[in-house]
Amino acid sequence: MKKELLFAKGLLAAILIFVTACSCPTNNQSEDCTLAVLDNIATRVSVRQFTDRAIDKDVLEDIVRAGMAAPTAVNKQPWAFVVVTEREMLDSLNRVHPYAHLETATAAIIVCGDMEKALDGYAREYWIQDCSAATQNILLAAHAYGIGSVWCGVYPDPNRIPEVTRVLGLPGGIIPLNIITMGYPASEDLQPKDKWKPENIHYQRW
Amino acid sequence: MKKELLFAKGLLAAILIFVTACSCPTNNQSEDCTLAVLDNIATRVSVRQFTDRAIDKDVLEDIVRAGMAAPTAVNKQPWAFVVVTEREMLDSLNRVHPYAHLETATAAIIVCGDMEKALDGYAREYWIQDCSAATQNILLAAHAYGIGSVWCGVYPDPNRIPEVTRVLGLPGGIIPLNIITMGYPASEDLQPKDKWKPENIHYQRW
Repeated sequence: MKKELLFAKGLLAAILIFVTACSCPTNNQSEDCTLAVLDNIATRVSVRQFTDRAIDKDVLEDIVRAGMAAPTAVNKQPWAFVVVTEREMLDSLNRVHPYAHLETATAAIIVCGDMEKALDGYAREYWIQDCSAATQNILLAAHAYGIGSVWCGVYPDPNRIPEVTRVLGLPGGIIPLNIITMGYPASEDLQPKDKWKPENIHYQRW
Repeated sequence: MKKELLFAKGLLAAILIFVTACSCPTNNQSEDCTLAVLDNIATRVSVRQFTDRAIDKDVLEDIVRAGMAAPTAVNKQPWAFVVVTEREMLDSLNRVHPYAHLETATAAIIVCGDMEKALDGYAREYWIQDCSAATQNILLAAHAYGIGSVWCGVYPDPNRIPEVTRVLGLPGGIIPLNIITMGYPASEDLQPKDKWKPENIHYQRW
């Protein structure tokens, strides 16, 4: 009886630690979840070398789903996503973008603006911000899955836009913002850049 | 001796459970951390009504730190952040932006592009993408802290840019991209929009 009691005491400690320290993701605002999110943001790095391990289609879909969760001006969602996993297509994209780093990538997501869904006049330009927010969500979701990625700019490069448009067969009104190169990182020793500069912060006014 | 052994066994169970099931945030790629990050992205909503609870300065700094962790074209980091918490300044900003929703907000972060740090020629425009990525990081970090926010566009609105510039005393070459309105949500019942549209995804090519 005493034996069981002692073992139970140890197990109680286990349960207490488990419940108090490990309540994500059901309680999104637990301290652990806050740290997990901040840590994911802080440790994301640009990855350009990958192993040959393929990314599951379901995982790619989850990652694009994260992209579509971004906010957009007047909720226009002026975007489309091309998911590329075929070697031949990755190579074709690599030939038209000098810094796409697709040599060893196993996937790419091309985030595009859809001008039919975009706002009018000067507000049309909000598609760039909307699609950039979606892109950042994609980078963060990929990183959370242990997948490395790098944001390779296409728009507003006057050479890259028509070339990527041609390779992907994009119709008129669809503008490629970037190529997100993806795969499982070849190196485990990737250190994030420390970009913290307190002098970039101003309080109340400039 | 036997007592300690039994208790130790229980504790060992605790440690095993802790290490295997609850390793965030030290092991960023545990399943729990992945879910915490995806959940944080999926449940973020635009919040426009807030309680009067102030946001700690340290928390605001952590949130801006997340902003600075965003990737930027050629690592230029062409940004600056104005953090506003004074009621009078929040009201002044509210008067010059018709949809800033700062009435009950306790803080605002204005994400600005710094043209001195931006690239040249057409590539100058990458500041918009860089600052949008930083903004999305800020929204996500705030949400992880249980803080609500809403992205209120300033650039490229020809009326809002000069007005926000004037209120904040921004020098030449500093362009306000947005006002991020912030505070602790007044309502606990905020449902995220479901923006998942599989027809927005194309595989291999359009």
